[in-house]
Amino acid sequence: MEVLPKAIVQAIEALSDLPGIGSRSAERLVLNLMRSSSGLDQRIASSLSNLKKNVHECKTCFHFCEIEKEECAICTNQSRDKKVLCVIETPLDLIALEKTHEYKGLYHVLHGVISPLNKIGPDDLRIHELVSRIKTHSEIQELILATSGSTESDATAMYIAQNIKPFFTGKISRLSRGIPSGGDLDYLDIGTLSRAISERRDF
Amino acid sequence: MEVLPKAIVQAIEALSDLPGIGSRSAERLVLNLMRSSSGLDQRIASSLSNLKKNVHECKTCFHFCEIEKEECAICTNQSRDKKVLCVIETPLDLIALEKTHEYKGLYHVLHGVISPLNKIGPDDLRIHELVSRIKTHSEIQELILATSGSTESDATAMYIAQNIKPFFTGKISRLSRGIPSGGDLDYLDIGTLSRAISERRDF
Repeated sequence: MEVLPKAIVQAIEALSDLPGIGSRSAERLVLNLMRSSSGLDQRIASSLSNLKKNVHECKTCFHFCEIEKEECAICTNQSRDKKVLCVIETPLDLIALEKTHEYKGLYHVLHGVISPLNKIGPDDLRIHELVSRIKTHSEIQELILATSGSTESDATAMYIAQNIKPFFTGKISRLSRGIPSGGDLDYLDIGTLSRAISERRDF
Repeated sequence: MEVLPKAIVQAIEALSDLPGIGSRSAERLVLNLMRSSSGLDQRIASSLSNLKKNVHECKTCFHFCEIEKEECAICTNQSRDKKVLCVIETPLDLIALEKTHEYKGLYHVLHGVISPLNKIGPDDLRIHELVSRIKTHSEIQELILATSGSTESDATAMYIAQNIKPFFTGKISRLSRGIPSGGDLDYLDIGTLSRAISERRDF
């Protein structure tokens, strides 16, 4: 790599540290930026250098929020249904759920799952905050545990349900499991398919 | 997207303008940067903001070169063979050729190919500079036209050969065409395979 100037090598190394971008892709990206006169290099540089400065976590739901505000755009939106609370693992899940336009309630972002292998316990997540949020907000009538499909996600949902059931009288629900839209049965894994049979619904 | 702070939206939009990175990948990259405490966001920001400031084109071969030097690391390397000159389209091709450790001569980067559809003529490339480089450097004995496999690349190589033959007495060569290493014959396109037959070599 000593055939390239230091500045280019540094940019390639930095971009190839992003997940899913290898050194070949990083080379292409950087040399593309070198050639382009659109100013994209400066736009990426300034947006990334301002990224963490201008964002913090919402004090209520722990989703990302403008630095000058205490609560995020969803918590402060008066048209959202304050009776339903959806517990998710990451802000990416929030983006995905919002794109469905199916859910109008509030969120609570855990920022991870319980994972003993990675030394992440309940105290490393926003579970205490969730428990006290449900205790202090008596208007909440349903809690949706919208964790992912992994074993760790299941365990996290179970832990939360156990901690909340003793005092919460509302409904606790979770996302349905089954075959994905457009999915071919013969390509599905056994776990998904066996759940789709055991949890079948009336036609 | 109004569910995300402006700084995050700007970073997602900037990254998704990179070639090959869609909006979903950009979301994942930015939220990954938000979560990580490795300082990768600042490293990418500073390396990209310095990218063009610290790099210009080598005055001899037009490869990228440190801003404080006139010539690139290859042109100033005394161990390179100054008798062979390899003409390539982009610095990416130079990186690829260097990785083979097969070529020890010098390069000349055209920065593109002749492409009438995209309004790129011979004057937009470093072809005049190539012609005068060959005229003034009498030590050059071989010119390798290492353009890519496309029709435009072929036409560019042909144009250069026509302009150089009248005065250049050395050898003009080009990369061999044929089946790629590890390639299955039945997956190859007709053009590659017919060339591999017509340009077959003695065993």
